[in-house]
Amino acid sequence: MAEKKIGLQTVKFKNPPSIVSTASIVGPKEGEGPLREYFDLIISDDLYDEDSWEKAESKMAREAVRMALKKIGMTPDRVDYLFEGDLLNQITSSSFVARDLKIPFFGLYGACSTMTESLSLAAMITDGGYSDYAVAATSSHFSSAERQFRFPLELGTQRPPTAQWTVTGAGAAVVGRNGEGPYITYVTTGRVMDFGIKDANNMGAAMAPAAADTIIRHFKDTGFKPQDYDLIISGDLGQVGRQLTIDMVKENGYDISQNFTDCGIEIFDSDRQDVHAGASGCGCSAVVFCGYLYSQIKKGNIKRLLIMSTGALLSPTSTQQGESIPGIAHAVAIEGRI
Amino acid sequence: MAEKKIGLQTVKFKNPPSIVSTASIVGPKEGEGPLREYFDLIISDDLYDEDSWEKAESKMAREAVRMALKKIGMTPDRVDYLFEGDLLNQITSSSFVARDLKIPFFGLYGACSTMTESLSLAAMITDGGYSDYAVAATSSHFSSAERQFRFPLELGTQRPPTAQWTVTGAGAAVVGRNGEGPYITYVTTGRVMDFGIKDANNMGAAMAPAAADTIIRHFKDTGFKPQDYDLIISGDLGQVGRQLTIDMVKENGYDISQNFTDCGIEIFDSDRQDVHAGASGCGCSAVVFCGYLYSQIKKGNIKRLLIMSTGALLSPTSTQQGESIPGIAHAVAIEGRI
Repeated sequence: MAEKKIGLQTVKFKNPPSIVSTASIVGPKEGEGPLREYFDLIISDDLYDEDSWEKAESKMAREAVRMALKKIGMTPDRVDYLFEGDLLNQITSSSFVARDLKIPFFGLYGACSTMTESLSLAAMITDGGYSDYAVAATSSHFSSAERQFRFPLELGTQRPPTAQWTVTGAGAAVVGRNGEGPYITYVTTGRVMDFGIKDANNMGAAMAPAAADTIIRHFKDTGFKPQDYDLIISGDLGQVGRQLTIDMVKENGYDISQNFTDCGIEIFDSDRQDVHAGASGCGCSAVVFCGYLYSQIKKGNIKRLLIMSTGALLSPTSTQQGESIPGIAHAVAIEGRI
Repeated sequence: MAEKKIGLQTVKFKNPPSIVSTASIVGPKEGEGPLREYFDLIISDDLYDEDSWEKAESKMAREAVRMALKKIGMTPDRVDYLFEGDLLNQITSSSFVARDLKIPFFGLYGACSTMTESLSLAAMITDGGYSDYAVAATSSHFSSAERQFRFPLELGTQRPPTAQWTVTGAGAAVVGRNGEGPYITYVTTGRVMDFGIKDANNMGAAMAPAAADTIIRHFKDTGFKPQDYDLIISGDLGQVGRQLTIDMVKENGYDISQNFTDCGIEIFDSDRQDVHAGASGCGCSAVVFCGYLYSQIKKGNIKRLLIMSTGALLSPTSTQQGESIPGIAHAVAIEGRI
């Protein structure tokens, strides 16, 4: 068995990589939500001085990486690898970041699981001795996602109660071989699960089986119990997906109901901001982690965090061809001290 | 500096991972080309008994992975990680493979650079001690790519001489910690380059700067010279891109004109098969490597190979918004014996 692996899907780091800096940029709506004070930049117009939403998204993604590096006095030429992906077709948002910053680039596509996919790979490459500094990053934009995945905004289509609101935001984390934490101590890489959901307005339900599978696997592989974490947080399951996940995990003997929430629930005020089942998008767990959660770990308010971004691996074409929506979730354990 | 890195962008493996098995599946046109005897399966109908080209592509991708595993008596449950991507929006081809085979999955998007992107990551994860067996795989399909990136086939649009023909094919390689070779000895990870080409029918020219950048970087980082390799082969530069790359590399003091070719040139007979500037697509370098090149290394006909898949990171949306086409190329050195 691979020497650094425990159980079937989990890696335990012997020299845990350190998240030495993060940055987050969000749109106006996210900037009115309960986590607003933790974001580095709230843009006042979702075009961000560009002439398309796609260009605005790429600019947010680029500036988040630049900002995370600048906080520690680093320049892009000192970064060994950029792990980044997004929701746009052919991940153009990320590719243009890589073009502008000239960092050796591994493009990823994990739908909304990208933040922990990129953190997982950056951590393995760093712990393995191939990198001193790697950046893990992702972004999404409400307006570019709506017109690509659902309907042109101009149509004014009504959204059902299970629908989620794609976060406009970008987050970037710098993973270093040396540093004073927070440390990445475990990663559990997800498998693709598909229980047959076909409704692109019910992504929470489509992703819940993958979320449950990864959480259960993480506990089985590590021997940890839910209470070993101060907080377990998923990416964008929303209200519907969160409850389904709690139920599925409980059927396997683990009760996470006391310390499990979802970035898509926390980022907006559901009473006030009318986002239906919650938020979604790669950017959701990215900005909640790079903004709020990172600061809470640094302050010692959260000592052990399990973050698990969740992705729905559909495309408009696959949905039109009658395919159901597969989901995936990658879990990353992050600790303030080791 | 990271302990296993040499130069700026290259990793040298201390315990080179072994490519323990490969498999390749191609479409009818590829099956009439000069490399036909090296493919494991030539499908007779490009729908492969499915009801859409997208489903056919995903089936090819899945069967290539299964076939590569079967050759060494392995089952998917013994594979630690699947690194896979493709050209379809949201890489649905690969996601459905991961759903069907239930292997922990890192989804990639590197356009046509995916074969060496996946090999690079699989090799690092394996050498790093996180994996015993990882699969690197990719696929493309002429008909699904044409309608997604260019025009519906039913339009019968005329193609200019610089256009390339997307390969219908899927390749999979099993990367193991132990094995008798061929061995992955170096990887050079590419940066995104963009010299301002905007013509989606001239991808070779768009990718050439990235190809040249990676080749030059590989020589600088390792100290190797072109003649240290029996063969240097790019993914899908085609005739136009190959010559541009030779010229740009020569300006930097390295003459690769004697031993540099392109998978997109080799897979079809240009006089007989009317593919204009050559072949393209993720599947191109995947099947040429997993079919022809792998067998030549095993037989000892090629002792040292530098393979570098090349990707054009455009999307129809980015092109419509006036963006030029960025390129990327990742190089992997493969040796029969070490």
